[in-house]
Amino acid sequence: MFITAQFDSGNIEVIEANEPSAIQLAIRKDNQSDFYQWFHFKLYAEPGVEHVMTITNAGQSAYPDGWKDYSALASYDRETWFRVPTEYNGKELVIRHSPDQESVYYAYFTPYSYERHMDLIQWAQQSIECEHVLLGPTLDGRDMNLLIVGEPADHKAKIWVTARQHPGESMAEWFMEGFLSRLLDDEDGAARRLLETCVFYIVPNMNPDGSVRGHLRTNAAGVNLNREWAEPSLEKSPEVYYVLNAMQQTGVDFYLDVHGDEALPYNFLAGCEGVPSYNDKMHQLGEQFKQVLLSITPEFQTEYGYEIDKPGEANLTVASNAVSERFSCLAFTLEMPFKDNANLPDVDFGWSANRSQQFGADVLSAIYGIANSLRS
Amino acid sequence: MFITAQFDSGNIEVIEANEPSAIQLAIRKDNQSDFYQWFHFKLYAEPGVEHVMTITNAGQSAYPDGWKDYSALASYDRETWFRVPTEYNGKELVIRHSPDQESVYYAYFTPYSYERHMDLIQWAQQSIECEHVLLGPTLDGRDMNLLIVGEPADHKAKIWVTARQHPGESMAEWFMEGFLSRLLDDEDGAARRLLETCVFYIVPNMNPDGSVRGHLRTNAAGVNLNREWAEPSLEKSPEVYYVLNAMQQTGVDFYLDVHGDEALPYNFLAGCEGVPSYNDKMHQLGEQFKQVLLSITPEFQTEYGYEIDKPGEANLTVASNAVSERFSCLAFTLEMPFKDNANLPDVDFGWSANRSQQFGADVLSAIYGIANSLRS
Amino acid sequence: MFITAQFDSGNIEVIEANEPSAIQLAIRKDNQSDFYQWFHFKLYAEPGVEHVMTITNAGQSAYPDGWKDYSALASYDRETWFRVPTEYNGKELVIRHSPDQESVYYAYFTPYSYERHMDLIQWAQQSIECEHVLLGPTLDGRDMNLLIVGEPADHKAKIWVTARQHPGESMAEWFMEGFLSRLLDDEDGAARRLLETCVFYIVPNMNPDGSVRGHLRTNAAGVNLNREWAEPSLEKSPEVYYVLNAMQQTGVDFYLDVHGDEALPYNFLAGCEGVPSYNDKMHQLGEQFKQVLLSITPEFQTEYGYEIDKPGEANLTVASNAVSERFSCLAFTLEMPFKDNANLPDVDFGWSANRSQQFGADVLSAIYGIANSLRS
Amino acid sequence: MFITAQFDSGNIEVIEANEPSAIQLAIRKDNQSDFYQWFHFKLYAEPGVEHVMTITNAGQSAYPDGWKDYSALASYDRETWFRVPTEYNGKELVIRHSPDQESVYYAYFTPYSYERHMDLIQWAQQSIECEHVLLGPTLDGRDMNLLIVGEPADHKAKIWVTARQHPGESMAEWFMEGFLSRLLDDEDGAARRLLETCVFYIVPNMNPDGSVRGHLRTNAAGVNLNREWAEPSLEKSPEVYYVLNAMQQTGVDFYLDVHGDEALPYNFLAGCEGVPSYNDKMHQLGEQFKQVLLSITPEFQTEYGYEIDKPGEANLTVASNAVSERFSCLAFTLEMPFKDNANLPDVDFGWSANRSQQFGADVLSAIYGIANSLRS
Ligand SMILES: [Ca+2]
Ligand SMILES: [Ca+2]
Ligand SMILES: [Ca+2]
Ligand SMILES: [Ca+2]
Repeated sequence: MFITAQFDSGNIEVIEANEPSAIQLAIRKDNQSDFYQWFHFKLYAEPGVEHVMTITNAGQSAYPDGWKDYSALASYDRETWFRVPTEYNGKELVIRHSPDQESVYYAYFTPYSYERHMDLIQWAQQSIECEHVLLGPTLDGRDMNLLIVGEPADHKAKIWVTARQHPGESMAEWFMEGFLSRLLDDEDGAARRLLETCVFYIVPNMNPDGSVRGHLRTNAAGVNLNREWAEPSLEKSPEVYYVLNAMQQTGVDFYLDVHGDEALPYNFLAGCEGVPSYNDKMHQLGEQFKQVLLSITPEFQTEYGYEIDKPGEANLTVASNAVSERFSCLAFTLEMPFKDNANLPDVDFGWSANRSQQFGADVLSAIYGIANSLRS
Repeated sequence: MFITAQFDSGNIEVIEANEPSAIQLAIRKDNQSDFYQWFHFKLYAEPGVEHVMTITNAGQSAYPDGWKDYSALASYDRETWFRVPTEYNGKELVIRHSPDQESVYYAYFTPYSYERHMDLIQWAQQSIECEHVLLGPTLDGRDMNLLIVGEPADHKAKIWVTARQHPGESMAEWFMEGFLSRLLDDEDGAARRLLETCVFYIVPNMNPDGSVRGHLRTNAAGVNLNREWAEPSLEKSPEVYYVLNAMQQTGVDFYLDVHGDEALPYNFLAGCEGVPSYNDKMHQLGEQFKQVLLSITPEFQTEYGYEIDKPGEANLTVASNAVSERFSCLAFTLEMPFKDNANLPDVDFGWSANRSQQFGADVLSAIYGIANSLRS
Repeated sequence: MFITAQFDSGNIEVIEANEPSAIQLAIRKDNQSDFYQWFHFKLYAEPGVEHVMTITNAGQSAYPDGWKDYSALASYDRETWFRVPTEYNGKELVIRHSPDQESVYYAYFTPYSYERHMDLIQWAQQSIECEHVLLGPTLDGRDMNLLIVGEPADHKAKIWVTARQHPGESMAEWFMEGFLSRLLDDEDGAARRLLETCVFYIVPNMNPDGSVRGHLRTNAAGVNLNREWAEPSLEKSPEVYYVLNAMQQTGVDFYLDVHGDEALPYNFLAGCEGVPSYNDKMHQLGEQFKQVLLSITPEFQTEYGYEIDKPGEANLTVASNAVSERFSCLAFTLEMPFKDNANLPDVDFGWSANRSQQFGADVLSAIYGIANSLRS
Repeated sequence: MFITAQFDSGNIEVIEANEPSAIQLAIRKDNQSDFYQWFHFKLYAEPGVEHVMTITNAGQSAYPDGWKDYSALASYDRETWFRVPTEYNGKELVIRHSPDQESVYYAYFTPYSYERHMDLIQWAQQSIECEHVLLGPTLDGRDMNLLIVGEPADHKAKIWVTARQHPGESMAEWFMEGFLSRLLDDEDGAARRLLETCVFYIVPNMNPDGSVRGHLRTNAAGVNLNREWAEPSLEKSPEVYYVLNAMQQTGVDFYLDVHGDEALPYNFLAGCEGVPSYNDKMHQLGEQFKQVLLSITPEFQTEYGYEIDKPGEANLTVASNAVSERFSCLAFTLEMPFKDNANLPDVDFGWSANRSQQFGADVLSAIYGIANSLRS
């Protein structure tokens, strides 16, 4: 029996792994930070024997509420990820699993590797509608990739979509894969029509360093990028710095920042109601956007979510608020669950990579629904 | 140089094929009928040389308006079908093409073979949500296949979808493939939710005999099935007879009959406004259905279509009218173009198999939008 | 419960099908012929219930020995075909199967449809190395397709490969698919080298009419094509007539005619030892050919096979003999089993489409092994 | 314009990259070592403009002869890798390329990532014939993976195959992928028969650390593993230490160590003629092995290769020699080219990942040819 995590987005420390019935583990903190919650490791198992894996420091993680009613993901082939029995006692997270095969991967959510990210970028750039731009290097020297979809033109609406500021929220990049698959499908009517009047600026992974390092929430320097949008710096948050600069050059008419939420078992949107320049038009557009989503998929809902900011009380270091304020545009933080959609639960898979992709495709419909109103 | 059509849905007669520049062809009539318009043949060509193929009897075909602004489809590999230069002079249809390869298939629209139909049925039956039922034999002895999707229950809404009464409208079966792909995707939220409250009864091909025979509009006996719904008979229209019987057993809460229109370059719905029992509720439901489609795809529109029947003047031999009247339910004939969607033209491919599939998937969203109102 | 066979290569007559436990069937004779053995039908079943299907006329079929130790093939999805319990009592063949799903296809061997044939031809023609030629129409008006692989040149060896003179021997076309896949793979070294010194003339299906009609052994006119090579005629055996004519134009340096054998559970070669012009060089080349096959695959053997013709006693109406004699070249009839390779049995699948494809690929290695000696 | 290499197996240093016409690069040395030759980087380009990339330190690399007649590989999508014009002046390597798209990857050979390695291992373990074993951790903490194929038994021949001791020789892992694909194909006759009498012990990547680090020749500690087989140590060469220990437990009847050669444009085998215990039986077996390969593929030859060691003069620190001597068994180093097979050149792709896979599959045929003699 052995446990390893030396691979892309791997994160675990082994305290004790002598008996399948008593495996003691701990999640590593993000570098230079106290955040931790993401885990991803490989177990070399005894097939047919129950392995009891206790994450001993679960109770002090960034979002202890995230462990309630949570089930860990497992995979034999790194393609199909299924849920395994998991319990949280307020202190420790206990995963129980009797593997059928000699090795199994476990993760907090279906991982999305940097190799797959590079494949996605190269696939996208081959579209005649897509231009691939390097924004600059991260602190670890990786590439900040921007995809520009649609021929830029002054009169077109500028739509920015960013994902995975928090690298442990891998569903955000699965979402982007679904979103891009549809946007670049030259026989998809909504996509084709959208590209006549809009240009999309897409950053599928805002935090490649944190992603590779197996972080939950920060970049290589331990910085939470989603608190850097008031004053990003090349030293601490180049990822945000580059994107905000590029936004400055293009302008922004609509912004969507894609995330995962550890605790709430729902998809939802958090708006920018607390931003000083928030106005009626934004509100109406936002309602229209939600209305389309509600009308086409039970994966979206508006009952559960974050508390709405009071007027003027928005945290302007947060991406969606900062962008909304700076560009006087509609902006949302979109949240997907780590757990499941409690309105449509799936005991075998929970919220999944596939459902994230489908939700990305559905969100394109919602953008289609408001596109013509963005600049009127 | 040689032209052949002895294969599934093949239809052409060669009048003269000696010179590539002067190929004279004629479309065969549907068996025991005067209808004709569907063609599908293979040219053994001289690569690099322009072949001028004249369909000499185009002007007397069922829908001469169908040839205006129409471009024929061609394929080297029977998978990718592209449009080739085509002209109509009011009498003859002239297709001009310089093939790159030794052989090319041409067709009125991307063919959908009976082999593919059988693959579709067997693929579908493997879903745990799907039951496969034989309704009975056609006149040529083929199978009338019904797919029941969702666990039947009294309280659930019964949704019937039929396609390809007119066998030359092959886009109708491509539509069904897209519709079924989504309906049977167990990670598609809308499909999963729909199956909680609805049962789908799906006939992907109402006219397998006509399809294999290369007919435009009739079954093996030369009967236009979409005029048989008042009094179908085992002798002349067993296809309709079986389906109407099955509908009688299940009841119908919503009915969609999928077609292609030769002349109009648009997707549109034809309602049952002329049916005696038409009422406000049907009207509102119908508007809601259209509204969802309009909100998510430019492939749908409501400006162009058939003239609306005056109250009480519906032709009750037509499927959608007959079913609406008999079951007091909302029913539509859905029409897709042979040509293109003039609101979103694609010069290379025109309206296509892929776009038909995507439209089938989108129509599921529209059903999702009205499902809860069907039985209230 | 219902049984149908109205589709490509379907063949069965239903005598009685009221009780799953007592289904009585008969195989139809080939048109204008007494041959029969091929069957292919679809059962609409009661899932979970044993269906006992008795082929009542098995004992009088063309090759009653073919039923000994034979197991029928079944498929739910028309892609994976598995063996089901089958017994032969000297008179009747009894297939017992409790299907998991509502419908199942059964066949004598994994079918290879005309649609798939057309796909294969169009796929092949796209290779820069391949030229697609129409030889002429069959009696039913289908196409006799020839694929020429490699740039023709006088100094190159002419290698002819034909398959499926007997249409029920569908493994022969699966073999051709494996053979062509490798021959047209532009990163396969042996194929690339072969095409420098050889040209291949390939007829993947010698008998498309019989194939579609669900025949065992004859063409549309009830003619056994493999007895027509002495004097083929356009009236009775145009398939052979065209091919022999084309051979006459190209010459032949090596000929392989691919078949299936109903009785013997082995792959084997039948040579042309009985042909008047048989000589030592042919013998040595033939031994070399077999030697390569023996050295690379246990799917081939030389112990079991047909009795070797005595010198001068070959039947010159048979393809391999006729071609060997006429072109003074090495020629083989290659036989694959309907049952299994008894040297390497597979209880689940028996001899299969996949193994036929792999054997086709392996035979290319054997041709590679003798190619340089063909014209020396 | 920008050049980056911060990804799996990335290796380049940018000296100057201001003008497309004058890009100055250098290859990094393997960690704690003077070896270097592997490169892999991404260029953010100006489409349509020629980029002249000079590797300034090519002349001092490990194998300067490797640059003669060498062409670098390029890829837009990381899937298709093609050759681009490359010149070597005895000192510098100059790559000239006018990209069609905004970004291109360049590499010394088609890369094989650690992610793909993990996918390969997990895919293989799912076979009922395959057991997946962890040998132990590398110096960087990665996993040394062993695949055992076939049910172990005393009487069976033990066949060991290792690949990529030198991590820059990525063709060696592509070879393993082809080899494993065939070995685990349960409808491949040769593979099935082999598993009746042999057990395979396969290490697809002997040097995962060097692979990820973008090394040419050494592990994380700068050690050339193929000089460690006399006395491997956990401190410096745990990769070899684990494998030799496992060999000690199983015994070895045949050993193949898969490599790439920088200079020679051929596939070839280097034997263990210089090993003290070398004997006639080994020699005959070895000749038989080569004979099968020669008989089936022009990708193998015996004219060009390394000089044969004089009796008793073998370097026993090299894997194949060490294993041959210790287990008195036939052992080979198998070499594939970085350039091309000069006997069968392909100007577009040169020696490729696909050809390496096919060669791996062909080598299984050669093992099949000697399997029964291994223990007799
Ligand atoms: Ca592009
Ligand atoms: Ca089912
Ligand atoms: Ca061609
Ligand atoms: Ca296994």
